[in-house]
Amino acid sequence: MDVADLTPAQARERFRSGERKPTAGWCRGWTQANLIAVPAALRYDLLLFAHHNPQACPVLDVGEPGAHATALFGGDLRTDLPGYRLYRDGKPVADLDRVTEEWREDLVPFLIGCSFTFERALLAAGVPVRHLELGTNVPMYVTDVACASAGSLSGPLVVSMRPVPEALVKTAAEVSGRYPRVHGAPVHVGDPAAIGIGDLARPDFGDAVEVREGEVPVFWACGVTPQAAIMASGVEFAIGHLPGHMAILDVRDDDYRVED
Amino acid sequence: MDVADLTPAQARERFRSGERKPTAGWCRGWTQANLIAVPAALRYDLLLFAHHNPQACPVLDVGEPGAHATALFGGDLRTDLPGYRLYRDGKPVADLDRVTEEWREDLVPFLIGCSFTFERALLAAGVPVRHLELGTNVPMYVTDVACASAGSLSGPLVVSMRPVPEALVKTAAEVSGRYPRVHGAPVHVGDPAAIGIGDLARPDFGDAVEVREGEVPVFWACGVTPQAAIMASGVEFAIGHLPGHMAILDVRDDDYRVED
Repeated sequence: MDVADLTPAQARERFRSGERKPTAGWCRGWTQANLIAVPAALRYDLLLFAHHNPQACPVLDVGEPGAHATALFGGDLRTDLPGYRLYRDGKPVADLDRVTEEWREDLVPFLIGCSFTFERALLAAGVPVRHLELGTNVPMYVTDVACASAGSLSGPLVVSMRPVPEALVKTAAEVSGRYPRVHGAPVHVGDPAAIGIGDLARPDFGDAVEVREGEVPVFWACGVTPQAAIMASGVEFAIGHLPGHMAILDVRDDDYRVED
Repeated sequence: MDVADLTPAQARERFRSGERKPTAGWCRGWTQANLIAVPAALRYDLLLFAHHNPQACPVLDVGEPGAHATALFGGDLRTDLPGYRLYRDGKPVADLDRVTEEWREDLVPFLIGCSFTFERALLAAGVPVRHLELGTNVPMYVTDVACASAGSLSGPLVVSMRPVPEALVKTAAEVSGRYPRVHGAPVHVGDPAAIGIGDLARPDFGDAVEVREGEVPVFWACGVTPQAAIMASGVEFAIGHLPGHMAILDVRDDDYRVED
């Protein structure tokens, strides 16, 4: 069965059984989300950080302290993502398939919008998506653009990149712009150096893709941004998803589309 | 000097000296905001409540615990609004000209968008604003529409009402819709009973205005909504502005206008 045809529940079952795959292209039509779970003492700072940086950190859902699920995610947040990254004192200390043991009673899970949500709309508009063609993870980069800080949290903007044929850049911007709660329109088009990216061939997260003749790199705000803030701010403890290995929600892509 | 021509600093000085007036029409071109200050222990719930109810509770600015000012408000939050309402255990216990003594070290001030911000644009588009003509406070009503709750906070939506000539309702909706961070387009047009308002002549806050032949009542989400939640939720302590007696910010109306 093509992973695009799986339901969210079916995909989550696979991940619960230990499958660790980037989720781009999985569960066509269903929304994917970034996970960042922080101790309750930090939840206000994180929510305020998200408020101050809405394009990078659109909050789709928040759980109660210690919750294993949220309204939009019917699975178990500790096991049903394909991969997790554990942080201690701002350092990633382990990548794990499940975090059942590590999940603390005071952890507050935030689900943050993901640009995978508008990739189906890009394809429908004739905009090719290279990492989907290749079956790889989207390339992500830590920029030198500072997010607005909030309390103890500060950090750089993280972006995802898709090479787009020059003639289709406007279309890509318009189509993604119709999904403001899952990063919306690009934050930058064209020059990686302008936002502090040294080498497109060496993404900070995910897999590199080729930018071909006639294509320009297009950058969207990325929901890994909270994890970059966790690192930059030396947060005592946090659990995120492994970049590109998303939470698949029980809500439709189309629910995040706004009318023209 | 016409109060419309005052700068925010000049208006704040008048209020600091004890003038208690509704601020509709004051400081033309400058943004006005609702104040709600809650103990730090409640700030996460309030920010989440605002996140869940963005049309009623658009957060323009937040201060640190105990702060007397914020980035957008250069005055003293304890003295420079024309009126304050003090809450204990969810009950309004006093209306005050200043809250210097009452302001606690753990109070976190939130400034919430106000529909006064788009009234100048309504006038410019030919939509009359009755309470401005009369020099009175805008009428506000507690509806039977429940806000999405957040932690310990829940409560009803509060709305402001302006009578609009039938032929101009669409214009009023379009013009205000260009100000999404200060309540945006109306939440209801026409039938007060449909949102639980029994008698337009008896507003819960502010002054009644006449709805004349050929006019329909148009309702916008109102930034008094957090105060309604404070009351409905029995919050231990909070300080709000006196409805209609707003904080006048050092930022322009036009900064909250989005392009068509």
